[in-house]
Amino acid sequence: MQTPRTTPSRKSKRMQYDPATIYSILDAALFCTISYAVDGQPWSLPTAFARDGNRLLIHGSVGSHFIREMEKGIPVCISVTLLDGLVLAKSGFSHSVNYRSVIVFARGEKVEDYDQKVHALALITNQLIPNRWADLRPETASEVRKTTVLSFSLEEASAKIRTGGPLDEPEDQTLPIWSGVIPLETVRRAAIPDESSVSLPLPDYLR
Amino acid sequence: MQTPRTTPSRKSKRMQYDPATIYSILDAALFCTISYAVDGQPWSLPTAFARDGNRLLIHGSVGSHFIREMEKGIPVCISVTLLDGLVLAKSGFSHSVNYRSVIVFARGEKVEDYDQKVHALALITNQLIPNRWADLRPETASEVRKTTVLSFSLEEASAKIRTGGPLDEPEDQTLPIWSGVIPLETVRRAAIPDESSVSLPLPDYLR
Repeated sequence: MQTPRTTPSRKSKRMQYDPATIYSILDAALFCTISYAVDGQPWSLPTAFARDGNRLLIHGSVGSHFIREMEKGIPVCISVTLLDGLVLAKSGFSHSVNYRSVIVFARGEKVEDYDQKVHALALITNQLIPNRWADLRPETASEVRKTTVLSFSLEEASAKIRTGGPLDEPEDQTLPIWSGVIPLETVRRAAIPDESSVSLPLPDYLR
Repeated sequence: MQTPRTTPSRKSKRMQYDPATIYSILDAALFCTISYAVDGQPWSLPTAFARDGNRLLIHGSVGSHFIREMEKGIPVCISVTLLDGLVLAKSGFSHSVNYRSVIVFARGEKVEDYDQKVHALALITNQLIPNRWADLRPETASEVRKTTVLSFSLEEASAKIRTGGPLDEPEDQTLPIWSGVIPLETVRRAAIPDESSVSLPLPDYLR
């Protein structure tokens, strides 16, 4: 949603507020960086997450310093960045990157319901490894008790996207300097079994 | 350096404070997420950066809202995360990720000297594309004037690293559930020339 906080001072043409765009970026990411402040001092934490409808979920140890601050409901800023390419122009000034990013302003709400907590843990696991949760040894009540799940509204979220090639100044375009895009991609390499799994078949969802 | 702010509440065995480790993580990264707070409200910005000795450099438009806040010298938290692998255990609880991350607490200092600014812009460009700067149309005084460079000390930086396989509970290790690691890697795909460069040779440093 566009609010004063999600309206940028620059490059406003790159901003997008429609939920489908925001969701697609969040769903493609492997982690977010979540920040909050205490007495003017910002703290940031990279962490796994999942999206559940119009909410974003994270989890952590009940003893975690970060979780204990955020469960108070103080304002947070959640940042997700997918780097898609390096954009090489003929001047340094016109260099850029192609990216898809999301910023969320919200306050954490603790998920207290047992079944909702387990649902969140399943979503967070499956965000990293689709279809993984159904294969696992079921969670124990003690594990769920040791874990705090925080939920954040995506109401005040915005996306920022750059695509395409370099935008050189007209007078630079005939310079004999190579310009273009180097695409970036995060790839999953072949799965490496640990000792206990060398004789187990690799599940289909990991192929 | 280990300070109260860089001492974690959990997993302290994963922490590292030696500069060589911190530098190697920063030097391998393509962007950082930098956060600051105004009246308790955190703001985060993913941005390119470079390391120059024991300092971290970022740049931005002189008109940028973020840059103008940070150039005041307010406290920031800079987060760099490299995700190296997904760690699949036999329980959801023991799932993890392999990563190398750095957190820096610092305050921005504006780089005013012209030559130091140009040096910073060269380092930031070369952090993304090694050896690129020497190939470019030289910067103009106007471009340098339109750009603010901020420098941050790495004195209060810490690294956190996880490597290796899953650490399942002993009683889970015989379960017939595949466990192990899926390595992750960010790869650069073949460079795509823009229209002005289709007949130019690809520079060696882009091969």
